[in-house]
Amino acid sequence: MGLVVQKFGGTSVGDATRIRRCAKRVAAAREDGREVVVVVSAMGHTTDELLQLAAEVSTSPGRRDLDLLLSTGEAVTAALMSMALRDLGHDAVPLTGGLLGIRTDRGYGSARIVAVETDAIARHLREGRIVVAAGFQGTAPDHSITTLGRGGSDTTAVALAAALGVREETGGVCEIYTDVDGVYTADPRIVPGARRLARISYEEMSELASLGAGVLHTRAVLFGQRYEVPIHVRHSAREAEGTMVVRESIDMERKAVVGCALTPDLARIAIRGIPNRPGVQGTIFRVLAEASLLVDDIIQNESADTADIAFTVAADRLGDVKIAAERAAAEVGAIGGVSVEVGLAKVSVVGVGMRTHTGVAATMFESLAAAGIRIANITTSEIKISCIVPKERGAEALAAVHDAFGLGSAAVPAPARVSATV
Amino acid sequence: MGLVVQKFGGTSVGDATRIRRCAKRVAAAREDGREVVVVVSAMGHTTDELLQLAAEVSTSPGRRDLDLLLSTGEAVTAALMSMALRDLGHDAVPLTGGLLGIRTDRGYGSARIVAVETDAIARHLREGRIVVAAGFQGTAPDHSITTLGRGGSDTTAVALAAALGVREETGGVCEIYTDVDGVYTADPRIVPGARRLARISYEEMSELASLGAGVLHTRAVLFGQRYEVPIHVRHSAREAEGTMVVRESIDMERKAVVGCALTPDLARIAIRGIPNRPGVQGTIFRVLAEASLLVDDIIQNESADTADIAFTVAADRLGDVKIAAERAAAEVGAIGGVSVEVGLAKVSVVGVGMRTHTGVAATMFESLAAAGIRIANITTSEIKISCIVPKERGAEALAAVHDAFGLGSAAVPAPARVSATV
Repeated sequence: MGLVVQKFGGTSVGDATRIRRCAKRVAAAREDGREVVVVVSAMGHTTDELLQLAAEVSTSPGRRDLDLLLSTGEAVTAALMSMALRDLGHDAVPLTGGLLGIRTDRGYGSARIVAVETDAIARHLREGRIVVAAGFQGTAPDHSITTLGRGGSDTTAVALAAALGVREETGGVCEIYTDVDGVYTADPRIVPGARRLARISYEEMSELASLGAGVLHTRAVLFGQRYEVPIHVRHSAREAEGTMVVRESIDMERKAVVGCALTPDLARIAIRGIPNRPGVQGTIFRVLAEASLLVDDIIQNESADTADIAFTVAADRLGDVKIAAERAAAEVGAIGGVSVEVGLAKVSVVGVGMRTHTGVAATMFESLAAAGIRIANITTSEIKISCIVPKERGAEALAAVHDAFGLGSAAVPAPARVSATV
Repeated sequence: MGLVVQKFGGTSVGDATRIRRCAKRVAAAREDGREVVVVVSAMGHTTDELLQLAAEVSTSPGRRDLDLLLSTGEAVTAALMSMALRDLGHDAVPLTGGLLGIRTDRGYGSARIVAVETDAIARHLREGRIVVAAGFQGTAPDHSITTLGRGGSDTTAVALAAALGVREETGGVCEIYTDVDGVYTADPRIVPGARRLARISYEEMSELASLGAGVLHTRAVLFGQRYEVPIHVRHSAREAEGTMVVRESIDMERKAVVGCALTPDLARIAIRGIPNRPGVQGTIFRVLAEASLLVDDIIQNESADTADIAFTVAADRLGDVKIAAERAAAEVGAIGGVSVEVGLAKVSVVGVGMRTHTGVAATMFESLAAAGIRIANITTSEIKISCIVPKERGAEALAAVHDAFGLGSAAVPAPARVSATV
């Protein structure tokens, strides 16, 4: 059997008892004769506590200092996990910082991996050790610690798996242990009839993840996709089957939609009366990007010489976005001003089967209409359809869509199947 | 003015407010035009909390894992201190682990420094940065983190100062900030009339430190002595003069005794009837050393073919020591068995002036006799005399000796001065 990379998230290693429990899972894999690399996150609320300390010490902590500070959380868990494994009679070695071999750029706070040097890890594995890797961290060219941003430990796990040659063909796997049973057709806290998916493609997982619905982070999924690392999402405390994230395969096409997601609290900004000359869109979104603001669902309407551009943002960043949007509007000479609409949510359906099924969009719009829910905006990608709806109807919209595509049970027939898109 | 190394202990950096206060001191030195290296300990009770976590995870945590775990405490403070300095408008860089350049042996838990590589620190200093060094840690030849044992951050500070060429001649200094005003003639909590010393020699400081009386650790003092690093012990929250630890100089000889100390709770072990052949002493103390037991005040009495050997140990290690002593007694064939005496304390006087003053021992014994305190045992070194006394009379003995040598005031005449020892 091939190498297994096991990643345990912050809740799974939240206290000594849980660390010992996770260590037993690691030990079991080792006792099955597998080589094991464990990737750990910081315990429970450690990261929040460290951020709180930083805020008490400085009004605007430097990113490099912050990265060193935050990286200690994962180092603590790595040391404790190694102890717990030794206590179970296994030889283990905790690796942090430069010893891990994860080289990144200087993008403190959300550094990008530029190389993974596996010499040290490979040597420890050869010598029979379980390698315990501190997640979320790498080192910049000057050897200072960087962190990989949100979902960083997932990225660490998949990147190490990729670099160590974990592929379906080699029998290897990257197991992401978390506090849910796997990937669901919808968030089971909102849609009680949601069903766990046994398999999902990288593309679908990546869309669901970027909608905030997934248990995995988009970057990790994209890494997995690029290097074809099989990712297994599993519950850390239960013996359950979980969800395999794998390459798209023939049997996945049977259903048009595999899952749906709710983005619960959005605002929509519109910049009106933009002189429609080449380059204005670039100018607007450059201004927003420079303020590190994430925008989505961009729509442009044209009329005569001017255009209106609208987009959504997370409601909690609205203040910053409004300021940046007004600066952008002034810069491009928009004559219609900036308007803001709050109290919105987004319901999305995702599925690679959309590429070959018709009627997906119609089914979605009809289900929302039948529930009497107004659609404020529609955006689509190759494998996703999103509708902006009133925030207070969000949960209802998700349930209606989930129901319309028969996601709650495996026995509902798929829509007519022809080679066309939505 | 030369380079200043400033070390702040765990109490001094115990919370965000205190870190900010210490940062102001650092900034003040920088604003005076000096190059500054700051060495920080872990905040307050961090180390104890990490040890507690380790104990919850493993019944016998491995030393290497423990060192990685503990080292995170200093890394956290280093990151926070760097943030606080940037908040004050200074360019700072936190260095931890391998980046610090402190290379040690593999002695996890109490590693010995084998080399200090100052390239990185020197470069940052040249580029105008304040270097914030995480204390207490180094790296083993395989680059894993080691810790330097008790007083490790003091050792880090003095070792960095030595390697960076801090000498009296260059105007440099190593400042140890702590929660007391400096080195006193006796512990002021026991002897209210104790006086702060403006200067003390390395040798005296090292004796006082090994008696547990000093604010500095013995290893750091010995390092300072070897490389002639001027060490300035100062209060972290008060503007006070503190104590300079420096080379012995002529004016220091005026007094026979500079300070006295109390070791409050000791037990004495005696192994009797040891066949007095060469090597038995070595065997006995090898057995104790292998159990990592610290013994002191060794005395041997001879009678005919056998010898009795007695020594003191900290009362809280008595159980372990008794077991080891019995094993040692069996190994050398001691026929008189092992006896234990508890409830002892040790009062010591220290001073390089002893080398040239007579009557020091007599003064000490007479003062204890005048107070009606029984002396159970006497040991001497070149610059120290120690008497074992009943534990319940310890504080009284310290006060009596302190008084007898006139340590509470500067105006008491020294004993007759001739070139003889005690």
